[in-house]
Amino acid sequence: MSLPTPLSTPLPTSPKAVLIDLAGVLHTGDQALPGAVDALRRLRDSGLPLRFLTNTTRSPSSTIIAKLQAMGFDIHGGEVQTAVLATKKLVQMRGLKPHYLVHPDIAEEIGPSSPTPDAVVLGDAGPYFSYDALNTAFRLLMQGLPLVVMARNRYFMEADGLSLDMGAYVAGLEYSAGVKAEVVGKPAQPFFATALADLGVAAEDAVLIGDDLMDDIGGAHAAGIPGILVRTGKFRPGDDTHLDIRPALVADDFAAVVDILLAQS
Amino acid sequence: MSLPTPLSTPLPTSPKAVLIDLAGVLHTGDQALPGAVDALRRLRDSGLPLRFLTNTTRSPSSTIIAKLQAMGFDIHGGEVQTAVLATKKLVQMRGLKPHYLVHPDIAEEIGPSSPTPDAVVLGDAGPYFSYDALNTAFRLLMQGLPLVVMARNRYFMEADGLSLDMGAYVAGLEYSAGVKAEVVGKPAQPFFATALADLGVAAEDAVLIGDDLMDDIGGAHAAGIPGILVRTGKFRPGDDTHLDIRPALVADDFAAVVDILLAQS
Repeated sequence: MSLPTPLSTPLPTSPKAVLIDLAGVLHTGDQALPGAVDALRRLRDSGLPLRFLTNTTRSPSSTIIAKLQAMGFDIHGGEVQTAVLATKKLVQMRGLKPHYLVHPDIAEEIGPSSPTPDAVVLGDAGPYFSYDALNTAFRLLMQGLPLVVMARNRYFMEADGLSLDMGAYVAGLEYSAGVKAEVVGKPAQPFFATALADLGVAAEDAVLIGDDLMDDIGGAHAAGIPGILVRTGKFRPGDDTHLDIRPALVADDFAAVVDILLAQS
Repeated sequence: MSLPTPLSTPLPTSPKAVLIDLAGVLHTGDQALPGAVDALRRLRDSGLPLRFLTNTTRSPSSTIIAKLQAMGFDIHGGEVQTAVLATKKLVQMRGLKPHYLVHPDIAEEIGPSSPTPDAVVLGDAGPYFSYDALNTAFRLLMQGLPLVVMARNRYFMEADGLSLDMGAYVAGLEYSAGVKAEVVGKPAQPFFATALADLGVAAEDAVLIGDDLMDDIGGAHAAGIPGILVRTGKFRPGDDTHLDIRPALVADDFAAVVDILLAQS
């Protein structure tokens, strides 16, 4: 579970772009976190280019963006990079014909399963991770099909507490089928590289703000991007004193991070 | 996944007891494997003491025994050691008050979940491994409750092919909650030790016959019991040439093993 280069590069004195995780940083469930809407407005007013990077794969990007806008966030479609759309791009580039085990809400965005699949692609099916659906995927993996997963997060914060994320099902299929999954979203390096290339910014000149020590901060550090951990969302005591993954900065919440970034620049 | 002492002790020239896995060795689903009923009768006629060791935890022992008898096997209750009953004994000895995530068919045998649990106990819930049930277990683990699992087999053979076993869910919960499960059934050493103590036989004087390279053969070897792998059930090409776990003997099926054992003694 450890990443190759977990140590952070230092925070840039004047960052040129900000990559922002969504759930747990800007909001929990349908609730904006305190001060987050206003903080995003102030960050945007500074003129810094922004990208929102999410591993949430239970909803299509249109739903994610509409939900954020309904909470009052000034966010637009072109700024949001989702693991679902990155997976769709990867499938197209490689010409794969996947069997999809995904949430029905993203079926339209990702496309239909092939009747003659050459890969198994997993998203966060949540309550649709039935035994039968997993067993179907397992049997395809035992036939030698590769496993591509949109994410492998361990858990996420819901309104009523921490909840199991799709990583549990990824780890389970890997164990039983004796395979290793390819991850498309965070902490995969191409996912960060795409955002940096879009913005035309070098890794060490950007910062990433996230609540997931392993997949946000660990992933960013492996990509050379300084990671800022917030004590909201799935943050748990001890995440800020982890021996291997040390954030460039730990702050109470997104608003506090914005205060620090704007005071620097 | 590797076991501490995977290398086999040699087959005893004259074994004093035979430990036998059930599913995949004597039968697949409701079908006795060819020659298995007659082979068991011949083995029993030889007077060798027998114990049947099963990690099947979707059914109570009464159902398992009745099913075997209906297929024609001469097997009695006192000879069958199940991971369910071993778990029940462990729970009683430690005075645990578990939250059970198990198949409803074993609810009566194992007992009810405590409303104020101090442990999470998993059996093979099969189709009852719903997202909500797993998430409830996950949240208890995140509160610090220990995870006890009846087994962690990767897959098993059903009439229509290999199917996902409970090990996938164990691995998933371990990954997401950052815990390590305690296994009660095979390959846990006390499970084998109980059978040997019941029979009053030393490990090196017994043999174990199984179709699961890791949990039957690897587990037996770690306990000092020579393991005999059969090419039935979940056996897959390559299991007989594994680098780390080398059976003392590989035979086509249970009947072939009995022929060899009876020719020796």
